[in-house]
Amino acid sequence: MGAEYDQHVAVTDLGNGGFAAELDEGWVVGGGVNGGYLLGVVGTALRAASPAKPDPLAVSAYYVSAAVPGPATVSTRVVREGRGSATLAAELRQGEQVRVTALATYGDLAGLPDDVRTTATRPPIPPLEECVPGSAAPEEVRKVARMMARFDMRFDPACVGWTVGAPSRRGELQAWFRLNDEREPDPVALLTVLDVLPPVTMDLGLMGWAPTLELTAHVRGAPAPGWLQVRHVTRNVAGGMFEEDCEVWDSAGRLVAQSRQLAMLPR
Amino acid sequence: MGAEYDQHVAVTDLGNGGFAAELDEGWVVGGGVNGGYLLGVVGTALRAASPAKPDPLAVSAYYVSAAVPGPATVSTRVVREGRGSATLAAELRQGEQVRVTALATYGDLAGLPDDVRTTATRPPIPPLEECVPGSAAPEEVRKVARMMARFDMRFDPACVGWTVGAPSRRGELQAWFRLNDEREPDPVALLTVLDVLPPVTMDLGLMGWAPTLELTAHVRGAPAPGWLQVRHVTRNVAGGMFEEDCEVWDSAGRLVAQSRQLAMLPR
Repeated sequence: MGAEYDQHVAVTDLGNGGFAAELDEGWVVGGGVNGGYLLGVVGTALRAASPAKPDPLAVSAYYVSAAVPGPATVSTRVVREGRGSATLAAELRQGEQVRVTALATYGDLAGLPDDVRTTATRPPIPPLEECVPGSAAPEEVRKVARMMARFDMRFDPACVGWTVGAPSRRGELQAWFRLNDEREPDPVALLTVLDVLPPVTMDLGLMGWAPTLELTAHVRGAPAPGWLQVRHVTRNVAGGMFEEDCEVWDSAGRLVAQSRQLAMLPR
Repeated sequence: MGAEYDQHVAVTDLGNGGFAAELDEGWVVGGGVNGGYLLGVVGTALRAASPAKPDPLAVSAYYVSAAVPGPATVSTRVVREGRGSATLAAELRQGEQVRVTALATYGDLAGLPDDVRTTATRPPIPPLEECVPGSAAPEEVRKVARMMARFDMRFDPACVGWTVGAPSRRGELQAWFRLNDEREPDPVALLTVLDVLPPVTMDLGLMGWAPTLELTAHVRGAPAPGWLQVRHVTRNVAGGMFEEDCEVWDSAGRLVAQSRQLAMLPR
């Protein structure tokens, strides 16, 4: 049967670069389906379309309309197949509606040089058992954000003030993360992990969901098994929009994925 | 005649979303044409394709093969026209070769709310007259990087050590920037400005040009006239690649553009 996540992002090859998917209602959040999950579905289709270069190195997704649970198709196209990497395009549609349009570079993470000269340092976070589980959220929150039942998320207590009306106003959210069924992270799953935390604007006291216009993910290494540390930061809230940077650190302490998204402020 | 920059990014409408451009040899750097300039050409074509929403809000460009001076075409496509923004796709080709494939969200910067709650602070930089002009570079450098003649760039003295074999190794480059002819910045020109500094890896002592795989630009406000402050930073050099974050601050002290790119380390 495999893990729940693998079932939810599974695609069926329709030939000619087309794939069928079933968007699971378990990933509903607010009025749509979580963008990180959609990125996982798109990333799975692209991996199937690029067997010789199976790993996402960079993926840029533009969220064109809100997806709903149910059938979807992902059409993929190879823009250029190079020696070390391939550039690909993908569109996720439901009926005639484009939900996500994306560009990507796929490659082989295992084939990259093994130098790591990362100067970013892993931000401190209390141990798992001192963090606040997402399951502690009020039932009405978990009903609106049904996706919270897909994983175990343990929030750094320093950035959960917003849940009780006392946001830190630093513009930072941080949590430990693990998919259900102890499904270990892999490069495609990291695409999902980059957009599963609540919007960082909550920590600024701006409640409500924040629709993503664009999210670009960089996967920089195959993650080690175990819990991931996920961090969201924003520094430029202006003009009704904000950028949100996400970092994912694996259990071996490596910065394995980074993303930046441009999103609309909650109304 | 207009400013040099406007002539260099000009496009001719061929109908059906197609545009002709002439890539100017003045933007050559190393073995190719500068990626920021190419982004300016793509951005100009997209602006022409989206008259009701004339400003780039987000542009993601995948650099597929090295461009050369001479004729090029830009094909554009409207993925979806929404109320406040439009999602567009573009490909810049020379003959049959795709050079750049891109996705973009265009909108109207003047129509956005005027709230600015930016928490990022403008990094200190010495005044213009205490900075090191790009024209002080040795002639052999200016021959390889002919694009340096397209603008006035004044480097923060704290990050020019690499030019004399003493890089700071902080992974930071910073400069004042102004296009030739005192051509004032506008939203499309900011796309160029986000990729005109030398690769930040020079400050790590890694000399040579660094091919961009992907660059995503966010334009967050129409820039005030005058000099721009441009800053490049990297925090994750690993696996033969690095991310480069760019910030552009305008003369009024506003963070008007941000980008992140994934690039290959110099060999």
